Amino acid sequence: MLCINTNMSTSLRVRLPVFVLVMEIVMVTLFAFFVTYDENANAKFQNNETNPMENSMYRDYPYFADVQVMIFVGFGCLLAFFRFYGFSGMVFNFLTATFSIQWAILIQEFARAGVLISFGAVIGKTSPIQLLVMALLEIPIFSVTEWAVLKYLRINDAGGSILIHLFACYFGLGVTFVLYRPNLNSGHAKETTCYQSDILCVLGTLFLWVFWPSFNSALTLKGDDQHRAVLHTFIGLSSSTITAFALSAVFNKRGKLTMADIQNVTLAGGVTVGASVDMMISPAAAYGLGIMGCTACFFGYRYLTPFLAQRMRIQDQCGIHNLHGLTGLISSTAGICAILLATEETYGPSMYQIFSHRAPPEGHEKLLELQKLIPGLKPGLGRTAEEQALYQVAAIFATIGASAVGGLLTGLVLKLPFMASPSDDDCFDDELFFDTPSDFDSSVT
Amino acid sequence: MLCINTNMSTSLRVRLPVFVLVMEIVMVTLFAFFVTYDENANAKFQNNETNPMENSMYRDYPYFADVQVMIFVGFGCLLAFFRFYGFSGMVFNFLTATFSIQWAILIQEFARAGVLISFGAVIGKTSPIQLLVMALLEIPIFSVTEWAVLKYLRINDAGGSILIHLFACYFGLGVTFVLYRPNLNSGHAKETTCYQSDILCVLGTLFLWVFWPSFNSALTLKGDDQHRAVLHTFIGLSSSTITAFALSAVFNKRGKLTMADIQNVTLAGGVTVGASVDMMISPAAAYGLGIMGCTACFFGYRYLTPFLAQRMRIQDQCGIHNLHGLTGLISSTAGICAILLATEETYGPSMYQIFSHRAPPEGHEKLLELQKLIPGLKPGLGRTAEEQALYQVAAIFATIGASAVGGLLTGLVLKLPFMASPSDDDCFDDELFFDTPSDFDSSVT
Amino acid sequence: MLCINTNMSTSLRVRLPVFVLVMEIVMVTLFAFFVTYDENANAKFQNNETNPMENSMYRDYPYFADVQVMIFVGFGCLLAFFRFYGFSGMVFNFLTATFSIQWAILIQEFARAGVLISFGAVIGKTSPIQLLVMALLEIPIFSVTEWAVLKYLRINDAGGSILIHLFACYFGLGVTFVLYRPNLNSGHAKETTCYQSDILCVLGTLFLWVFWPSFNSALTLKGDDQHRAVLHTFIGLSSSTITAFALSAVFNKRGKLTMADIQNVTLAGGVTVGASVDMMISPAAAYGLGIMGCTACFFGYRYLTPFLAQRMRIQDQCGIHNLHGLTGLISSTAGICAILLATEETYGPSMYQIFSHRAPPEGHEKLLELQKLIPGLKPGLGRTAEEQALYQVAAIFATIGASAVGGLLTGLVLKLPFMASPSDDDCFDDELFFDTPSDFDSSVT
Repeated sequence: MLCINTNMSTSLRVRLPVFVLVMEIVMVTLFAFFVTYDENANAKFQNNETNPMENSMYRDYPYFADVQVMIFVGFGCLLAFFRFYGFSGMVFNFLTATFSIQWAILIQEFARAGVLISFGAVIGKTSPIQLLVMALLEIPIFSVTEWAVLKYLRINDAGGSILIHLFACYFGLGVTFVLYRPNLNSGHAKETTCYQSDILCVLGTLFLWVFWPSFNSALTLKGDDQHRAVLHTFIGLSSSTITAFALSAVFNKRGKLTMADIQNVTLAGGVTVGASVDMMISPAAAYGLGIMGCTACFFGYRYLTPFLAQRMRIQDQCGIHNLHGLTGLISSTAGICAILLATEETYGPSMYQIFSHRAPPEGHEKLLELQKLIPGLKPGLGRTAEEQALYQVAAIFATIGASAVGGLLTGLVLKLPFMASPSDDDCFDDELFFDTPSDFDSSVT
Repeated sequence: MLCINTNMSTSLRVRLPVFVLVMEIVMVTLFAFFVTYDENANAKFQNNETNPMENSMYRDYPYFADVQVMIFVGFGCLLAFFRFYGFSGMVFNFLTATFSIQWAILIQEFARAGVLISFGAVIGKTSPIQLLVMALLEIPIFSVTEWAVLKYLRINDAGGSILIHLFACYFGLGVTFVLYRPNLNSGHAKETTCYQSDILCVLGTLFLWVFWPSFNSALTLKGDDQHRAVLHTFIGLSSSTITAFALSAVFNKRGKLTMADIQNVTLAGGVTVGASVDMMISPAAAYGLGIMGCTACFFGYRYLTPFLAQRMRIQDQCGIHNLHGLTGLISSTAGICAILLATEETYGPSMYQIFSHRAPPEGHEKLLELQKLIPGLKPGLGRTAEEQALYQVAAIFATIGASAVGGLLTGLVLKLPFMASPSDDDCFDDELFFDTPSDFDSSVT
Repeated sequence: MLCINTNMSTSLRVRLPVFVLVMEIVMVTLFAFFVTYDENANAKFQNNETNPMENSMYRDYPYFADVQVMIFVGFGCLLAFFRFYGFSGMVFNFLTATFSIQWAILIQEFARAGVLISFGAVIGKTSPIQLLVMALLEIPIFSVTEWAVLKYLRINDAGGSILIHLFACYFGLGVTFVLYRPNLNSGHAKETTCYQSDILCVLGTLFLWVFWPSFNSALTLKGDDQHRAVLHTFIGLSSSTITAFALSAVFNKRGKLTMADIQNVTLAGGVTVGASVDMMISPAAAYGLGIMGCTACFFGYRYLTPFLAQRMRIQDQCGIHNLHGLTGLISSTAGICAILLATEETYGPSMYQIFSHRAPPEGHEKLLELQKLIPGLKPGLGRTAEEQALYQVAAIFATIGASAVGGLLTGLVLKLPFMASPSDDDCFDDELFFDTPSDFDSSVT
């Protein structure tokens, strides 16, 4: 039933097309003026010295394709876990991911994953218009933050623990703080899963699990660095997965497994190894990080999420603070430890490649020496381990601050009229935005 | 219940095994006589100058594997959208894709995708025998057409817009024209979806979406050409996807989204960028092509498909004319424009690689000059842009003509007795060809 | 309902956490002491002669990632085929696969697939504790067997027909022999599928199908060998698939297709080509192997599995003896034939690379000659084809013997108290180990 007050209407009939049309005009204009082929995609720049197989595509595309599967299929299935909200979870993920691609091609590629993480905080309580606007705002705020952090603080963050997971988490929490719905704190009749939706969600978990090593290693240096990133991610994920099973059983009154734990907590290790994923932390440390991340994530779901909802007005629907926030903090801390412990003895001269800001500055004598060992080593800032560690700490606080403020502001925008925000009653219900098949209510009840 | 008249029976008990047995004898004979290892697969041809990592496998297999996921998983889920026809959609796709592989290994690799596109026109109304016979005929007709077009017309068609999409579409329409079932024009009680089948179908869409760049770039030149193909496909798909959401909402009376649009129309951009996917058309043009293809596809589903069914005896079940025909025509037209606009200024000398028929012929002075810039450039036909464009036009008409005639003839073959063609009543019903589990009727009704 | 006797209780509340905790302590200790970075992952070993793109990761990771999809997604969906056991099938596969990774990183990578194959014999009748203990024992027994076979017998087994499929099969049969449950021989009320679980299972089949070429080629030599492995696997799978459809129809009273055949028998060809997958067997022979494997597998399901259950106390739940045992035997036999038929005429000098044990021994004159043709050829044992064939035969018997004994012993361990083994009544029922959603019984019944 549509309300008469159009501000409160949730019909997409005018809003969505107008938004899309405006965005398309903006995008195509920006594309026309600002998106050009780089040297790897421009036919004109190919000459008799070009080796086609050295095109950057062959280095990057396999990892990119894996990440695409994570974003479209993995997140798509994972977010389809509600019994009456499967269409919305999967389809709004599709819409948001697609829109984000366009925006991200213009600005920053890896911003996309962040948008979908933040989506997890507000799933079930937002219209597609709100999600698109959120993507529209989150990506530039992300990019400015990233640019500032990378330019002024210069940090190591191969797996994106700080810039992707922490940013996306606190941004999402900021948004959901503003969109607080007190009536939903006591639960909603449709906030439930069913047998098939639980299975679909596990399928999403499995896709995320399988391709997480590609995600964590996509941005590392090539060679042994990427090799370690893949290895550590596997180890971290696997220790976190078996820990999740154990915790799920021990905290269940009847000693049974809870699907929500298996769908979410298992993945914590992938985030926790992120910040140090390419460093020589040792396989055993990756194993330990997986256990720690999983444990923090599990207790976060159990105690922190209800507390945040009841006391702090932060309704974190999918518990992104557990899977991305707490784990991101552990990961960043571990990254700092790894930085402090890094020595030339362990890394050899390639230490100055991995920790590039520790390389001697331009013109320094030691740089020339090192460049004999590693041709092409770029001059750095000559930082000590301690200095680098302090910059990492600064980056953590800066990122959390920027993302939280950005999220709060974005939340205020999402409360504007014409955003087709669903009423409390209509939350978690596909019928609001979809024509549903005839078995929607009957067979699933 | 089996009919007494065996001609009309739909039991597969004799027909399918006989067909398979005959085909296996034929295949294994053909394999024995005609399929040999090429130089990349023959142990004998390896010598001390062979670099194993330069084997063609490492160049082609990743894209091939992605296309396999599209064909088996993507199409498989996509075609499982009917409520009572999920087994058939997914399993007949599996059977047809597999049989086509064998036939295609003998003849032409990329013919396979075409068969599955054509399948979309007649899904729900055909027996597996008919589908296998269709594959058996379509692949050689395709190959002859392709051979003739490539040999005599020599065209550019990297993404297969003409030779795959247009061919498959008009072939399928030809078949369905002959198989016209007037009683189904007013709908069929089982021609419906359910909640889970819709979700499965979206999953298929997502797999097709994610790997479409691999499909569109599999046949391009390596290097910057393939890089552009991937980039353009992403951009085209993403603009087409958000346009599909907008159109779906604006043409729905209650401003809601329709799953069929999201399952199909979103993908239109992947086809539309096909013919010019490796050219320097600019990202903005790829964006525009996505919007145009999506719009044509959307209105095709809304107005053209019913018109074709009611007035032209063409019952296009999945609307392949919208997703592959209209978009293929737009794509081919865009390809022609790109050819007409191509200049050495934009492309540099590599223009003569991409538009290989425009390269100067053997012995021509300019060829030698160009070969200094691009070693290994092959002599071409010295065509002008206008000449090439005319050949492209000729290829479009020739392909449409050949495929439509081929489809009509194939349709006549499919009407022969012993094809186990289902009665009108039995269409869209898994029970005809499958032992179904006990919840088939109950839980899904 | 929990029993009072804790030995017979199936609560995971204490058992699972204790097992996981103990294993984690063991693992992290072993990791700390025994897992070090190899030269491809150790930063210290990189120097100015290292080409990052030659890191072993770029050679292996794509195949590894494909195999991961098979194991987590393919097996996960395939094993979710029971109506009331979908959570267990998919989630226990996830748990077992993950735990196996850790164990396998320590010991032997490819052991993992074997554990999941063996799981198929006892699915529905085992607790997660039992599965973890089975993995814990199977991997070292596998590794010792493999080490002994490779060290003392030195065989060719690129696709793992002997060491993976035969081993896993007879190990699983040994386990299930000990775990024999006479009351289940007449069937169980919950041993059934439903529409959605059948579709999910086919999805698993499709993922296995698509990536099987990567599995079969992951361990071959690079270059033409791997190329042939991919080609043969496709051909074998495709002939086996269409044969499975034919057999399914011809042996069904009403001439319909049976989903279980399509879910399992179609894949037989992938195993059957395994032992000779990288040899010059000819495409036609691969085709024939697919047909043979499929036929044996089909009749195995029809006649042998019931016989084994009723008469031999071997309840092989998923019929792994058909899909991995019979096909493994055919494959091994075919491998022996291929070895006997191999000549330098067919293979050229690279015969001594593929059949490395036939290469002349160190210091032999012919070795030097061959090394001129193939630089880097390693000295072999100078075996004749007949000698190699006999060693293959010995390997088959040794592997079957070791795996069967290992399986029997493992089965005895699984019968110990505190293993949370389900009662006969509770078999095939998710409710035993999971909190299930409210529609678990109602909507699916």
